[in-house]
Amino acid sequence: MSFARVAVIGLGLLGGSVARAVHAHLPDAMTTGFDADPAVRERAREIGLANFVPETVAEAVTGADLVVLCVPVGAMATAGAAILPHLAPGVIVTDVGSSKASVAKALAEVLPGISVIPAHPVAGTEQSGPDAGFAALFRNRWCIVTPPAGADEAEVARVMAFWEALGARVETMDAEHHDRVLAVTSHLPHLIAYTIVGTASDLEEVTQSEVIKYSAGGFRDFTRIAASDPTMWRDVFLSNREAVLEMLQRFSEDLTELQKAIRKGDGAMLFDTFTRTRAIRRSIIEMGQDDARPDFGRSHT
Amino acid sequence: MSFARVAVIGLGLLGGSVARAVHAHLPDAMTTGFDADPAVRERAREIGLANFVPETVAEAVTGADLVVLCVPVGAMATAGAAILPHLAPGVIVTDVGSSKASVAKALAEVLPGISVIPAHPVAGTEQSGPDAGFAALFRNRWCIVTPPAGADEAEVARVMAFWEALGARVETMDAEHHDRVLAVTSHLPHLIAYTIVGTASDLEEVTQSEVIKYSAGGFRDFTRIAASDPTMWRDVFLSNREAVLEMLQRFSEDLTELQKAIRKGDGAMLFDTFTRTRAIRRSIIEMGQDDARPDFGRSHT
Repeated sequence: MSFARVAVIGLGLLGGSVARAVHAHLPDAMTTGFDADPAVRERAREIGLANFVPETVAEAVTGADLVVLCVPVGAMATAGAAILPHLAPGVIVTDVGSSKASVAKALAEVLPGISVIPAHPVAGTEQSGPDAGFAALFRNRWCIVTPPAGADEAEVARVMAFWEALGARVETMDAEHHDRVLAVTSHLPHLIAYTIVGTASDLEEVTQSEVIKYSAGGFRDFTRIAASDPTMWRDVFLSNREAVLEMLQRFSEDLTELQKAIRKGDGAMLFDTFTRTRAIRRSIIEMGQDDARPDFGRSHT
Repeated sequence: MSFARVAVIGLGLLGGSVARAVHAHLPDAMTTGFDADPAVRERAREIGLANFVPETVAEAVTGADLVVLCVPVGAMATAGAAILPHLAPGVIVTDVGSSKASVAKALAEVLPGISVIPAHPVAGTEQSGPDAGFAALFRNRWCIVTPPAGADEAEVARVMAFWEALGARVETMDAEHHDRVLAVTSHLPHLIAYTIVGTASDLEEVTQSEVIKYSAGGFRDFTRIAASDPTMWRDVFLSNREAVLEMLQRFSEDLTELQKAIRKGDGAMLFDTFTRTRAIRRSIIEMGQDDARPDFGRSHT
């Protein structure tokens, strides 16, 4: 049984994409949208992001049978508390946060008695804001649903069906395992990308202009995810601290090994390491999770 | 004055692209090609990579007025020694190696009395082999020419004009500065990408299949350059050791700072760092060095 009225709270890249994907794939559902920023609400109305973008979160969630929280993970508790008094009986609350254990805990605390089924669509771009979303964002990407202990199976199934309707492939997982998996496939990559872009900006002997001009040697690949929304990512690292620090520790150890090999001139070790890493990309492409064209299909004209 | 006969030694991604770009942009020049691997020579003939792909390097360089060495930087000295007895008077030898001081030194030693004008087109993809090249690879990318002390100005100008004819924007730099600039814009990014892909492969609690499925969270961006040619990259790290180790040291210090901020829950420091990094991507796009479309223009269908 699909949803009749979907409220999207937070109208950035993810919220905007959810609303657009609902319009595209569930045309019978009515959407409402809300964002704490009045300028974002105004822009959302201009571009018709949702059927109804009221001035208050109360109006946005009233009568909704699904509420999708699309705010930074650090703002989930505040958003949950704000909607509680206005929720309809039988509503399901879900979210799109990139870390799940802390979000599940925060929402369970502020939404007692409400069905909360957290989820995380593993999809995004480096863009943010109400104009950044698009209906195809979730197509062929995975969405991980992390049902809390004792969750109603029929409600979990409805949330899974919702994401499948939006084009995603859906998997369930416990929140702690999700947080470890995403620490390596998403959080650590962002941390490293932010770091190297920062390192390159701070050099004295190499100018900013040189870094920019010669970025096609590899550096530019890191600048994409390092252009992601700072508030969202601050919150991700604060909320998934333990798993991120553990993965970072492993990464640092591996980097130290390569550093030693370079210092000692151990070409065999370098060659071995560089050979093992090709297979993963091939698998990612075979699984439809990246563009098979060279250079991500970047334009060469 | 352009070149009449261009010999391309090494027929992988770079060599193949040079040959194709010469055909596209300098149709009056005749090309010869050679690769140490007989299977590559055979394939090069099948696809018409050069006008003439003889069985020996001697035949390939005989009569050439420009020789472009497109072998891994660790093989430059061997390639240089092999061509020396067969070079025509007045020939210019150049190369496309990713590190320049060690290559310039190696080529000067094995090619006494020959005009060697090293160069580095900052362009590439993750593909390798004779089928990987394409004529537009250098278009709008920078090519750094590193003339040795005392180089003939007219010869330097001819090499610069050659790369401009192939579509590149050309800059000159001394070899040591080149190696420091590229250490940060290319070598360190590759080292980090190889490391994180290796780290993710070695985890016990997160399966390879999970890493692949959820790679769209950011990890997949690193797998592209980590799929680059292992021989080429082994040689780059061995030949540009000092500059790479210095940049790696700075990166590690910056990463430790972010690690501390996460451990202490210092959200303001994280937010600050993540905000500074957006401007660089904007500049890279404005300089025409990356695709402005979200997600590198990856297909979302």
